[in-house]
Amino acid sequence: MENNAYQAMNERGLRDAYAAVRGQYDALREKNLSLDMSRGKPGLEQLNLSAGLLTALTDPADCVSDGIEVRNYGFLSGIPAAKQLFAEILGCRPDECFIGGSSSLTLMYDLVSKAFTHGLLHSKQPWCRLEKVKWLCPVPGYDRHFRITQSFGCEMINVPMTPEGPDMDLVEALIRDPEVKGMWCVPKYSNPDGIIYSESTCKRLARMKPAAEDFALVWDNAYCVHEFDGPFVPFPDIIGLCRDAGNADMVYEFASTSKITLPGAGISVMAASVDNQTYLQRLMGVQMISEDKVNQLRHVRFLKNKENVLALMQRHAEFLRPRFACVLGALETEIAPLGLASWQRPKGGYFVSVNTQPGLARRTLALCKEAGVAMTPAGAAFPRGIDPNDSNIRIAPSLPPVQELAQAMEIFCASLKLAALEKLLGIKPV
Amino acid sequence: MENNAYQAMNERGLRDAYAAVRGQYDALREKNLSLDMSRGKPGLEQLNLSAGLLTALTDPADCVSDGIEVRNYGFLSGIPAAKQLFAEILGCRPDECFIGGSSSLTLMYDLVSKAFTHGLLHSKQPWCRLEKVKWLCPVPGYDRHFRITQSFGCEMINVPMTPEGPDMDLVEALIRDPEVKGMWCVPKYSNPDGIIYSESTCKRLARMKPAAEDFALVWDNAYCVHEFDGPFVPFPDIIGLCRDAGNADMVYEFASTSKITLPGAGISVMAASVDNQTYLQRLMGVQMISEDKVNQLRHVRFLKNKENVLALMQRHAEFLRPRFACVLGALETEIAPLGLASWQRPKGGYFVSVNTQPGLARRTLALCKEAGVAMTPAGAAFPRGIDPNDSNIRIAPSLPPVQELAQAMEIFCASLKLAALEKLLGIKPV
Repeated sequence: MENNAYQAMNERGLRDAYAAVRGQYDALREKNLSLDMSRGKPGLEQLNLSAGLLTALTDPADCVSDGIEVRNYGFLSGIPAAKQLFAEILGCRPDECFIGGSSSLTLMYDLVSKAFTHGLLHSKQPWCRLEKVKWLCPVPGYDRHFRITQSFGCEMINVPMTPEGPDMDLVEALIRDPEVKGMWCVPKYSNPDGIIYSESTCKRLARMKPAAEDFALVWDNAYCVHEFDGPFVPFPDIIGLCRDAGNADMVYEFASTSKITLPGAGISVMAASVDNQTYLQRLMGVQMISEDKVNQLRHVRFLKNKENVLALMQRHAEFLRPRFACVLGALETEIAPLGLASWQRPKGGYFVSVNTQPGLARRTLALCKEAGVAMTPAGAAFPRGIDPNDSNIRIAPSLPPVQELAQAMEIFCASLKLAALEKLLGIKPV
Repeated sequence: MENNAYQAMNERGLRDAYAAVRGQYDALREKNLSLDMSRGKPGLEQLNLSAGLLTALTDPADCVSDGIEVRNYGFLSGIPAAKQLFAEILGCRPDECFIGGSSSLTLMYDLVSKAFTHGLLHSKQPWCRLEKVKWLCPVPGYDRHFRITQSFGCEMINVPMTPEGPDMDLVEALIRDPEVKGMWCVPKYSNPDGIIYSESTCKRLARMKPAAEDFALVWDNAYCVHEFDGPFVPFPDIIGLCRDAGNADMVYEFASTSKITLPGAGISVMAASVDNQTYLQRLMGVQMISEDKVNQLRHVRFLKNKENVLALMQRHAEFLRPRFACVLGALETEIAPLGLASWQRPKGGYFVSVNTQPGLARRTLALCKEAGVAMTPAGAAFPRGIDPNDSNIRIAPSLPPVQELAQAMEIFCASLKLAALEKLLGIKPV
């Protein structure tokens, strides 16, 4: 990162700047605000876009889909119509889809859990028998991914993100280690940077030849149709790419309707090769009869098809766009001229990821908290919560109204400036 | 078991009886029927009793419960109103409840899975590190329970059922082995016998002092309000019984609305001590944000309270009672006089469990199948599908209309008689 504007100032200039920013910050703090930019939670208007979901299935006579009475037991892998819907969205085949409950995170956890207790399709033994399991973690990344692999005792290896996706030279070197068993990926609008993996990155990932025969490429396509600025951006079918590369059973793709319909009551999918499905469903058949099929049919009736889903996402975009504009605008005006941080300008997803100059993130967030702004904790986007540069801050603008966001960003910018000035002046926080 | 009537016959009498039964069976087989008494699936009329569930929550403005917007993320352990409802039904405390998705089986699987990957509250280490894990299995029992412990490689130990519940003298002896880590129980209308554990059995179970400090008493209260004949039969709160006996953390109770509302779209509960909840929810917080809270609120609005649930169960009973009467009537008329089998006469639950004279179950079911009647496979009610006496047959009468059931029972009774006669006459099935 370039030097920042403060670094060019002399002691006197710095002291003046500090006094001004301190005054501004104190005035904001005295407002005793309580604002939340901590998590990627849709706002109330977004929830109301799916009001039709609540009335999509009200007559018992409508509870039949492809001859299946969805209210009764059975059909472990979900109803065909739900598989069809997700297959159309993801570009894969319906028989490559397993339909889960409201949380794709649970499906991912279960995959890792089964790898440890039973092994995956090509495992020689369950992973719990191994000395060590290593896992590749593109950083910054999704805190909940890292918590899963941490919970199972994996050694997590940071892989820096580039504007094209994870650093593939490093990935290709690391997978030569047979103890490296998997990798987290958020290929579109990565959490938190909002980066879209380039076609070349996707192909290099699909073509990997990991030393571990049971390497799991976990492809969390959480934001696959989640543009808030501009038209839908097509993405490759990773299942097909891996199949074409002779790696049919290496990849497990996940998605959900959490940010399409309702976060607390959506449906999810795990897409994988038919051989993986056969293997995993044999294990999952011990665990459940099926996920909620009434809610699957409710979603099919409400969402209909990909075209209709994309139209719904454009309506979500109307609420998200001004919020992101507010955050990006504040950063552009207040922070860019000073060179205190850098950030991507995503056109989809749920986050803005700010990379401050080294050593400023924790102090900035402490100052935000003191002034009533809740943010994702510093380091959250790194395995075990350790950001080696103390630099990354994830901003989640979806929930607060724009007016509150503007206030929160005012506090955020003042906090970041104050943190930078404190550091240069050697002022220790009390 | 007493001698059967055929055993008192001479060769000639047996041959005559065989010819008569064979003729009857062949005539039935020629009807080419296709009848299903294989699983405890509610019938369509029962599903329609919960039509109101589909319209219980149709207005976005109603999606708030105790100040919680149920459509959005959060509240891992479920909404307070759902905890309140299950606590009232089970007689435990709301903060002892974790609300799950449509399947309590999934909650049970997850408990066992977490014991293996992370250990339970009082475990010294995860069970996957142990040489051997043994599990007590009252038999006959629920096939899906046994499949879970089989899937995790447990050594399953059969414990015979008595009319009071599992043989407690044997249980108390077996738990002195520190490798015995848990036990499956269906305390009310046990699957498949329909036996209610006596108060004394419940208390002895609650007072157990297993050698394993992390012994798990899995209390699957699947049929807690499922009377089909007569009024609701109260049951003890096992969580409280265990707490009173100084075993607060030993028990995990499960229940669901699968056979109250909709099997494919209900809600479930895991009740356990607050310390167990704290421990397990810390692990489950890695796995999910929450289960479907909209469906939780839908159930709360539709079911309201225990009184209303019991009234709904009486309406289920109207459909189940004649079906069980048909099955029990056929057994009473056709089989009892011959002494070929014995059975309980349950007033609740979903099954009639027939114990034939030794060595007749498999052949009887093969004959049923040949004549177009699908039944639960022989041995299913035993760990690894092995019925040491080849005696137990589970009849599930809930799904077929009474007229079909009558035909199926005609075939069943003829098949059992034929199997008994073949055996006495030394006739080998072709």
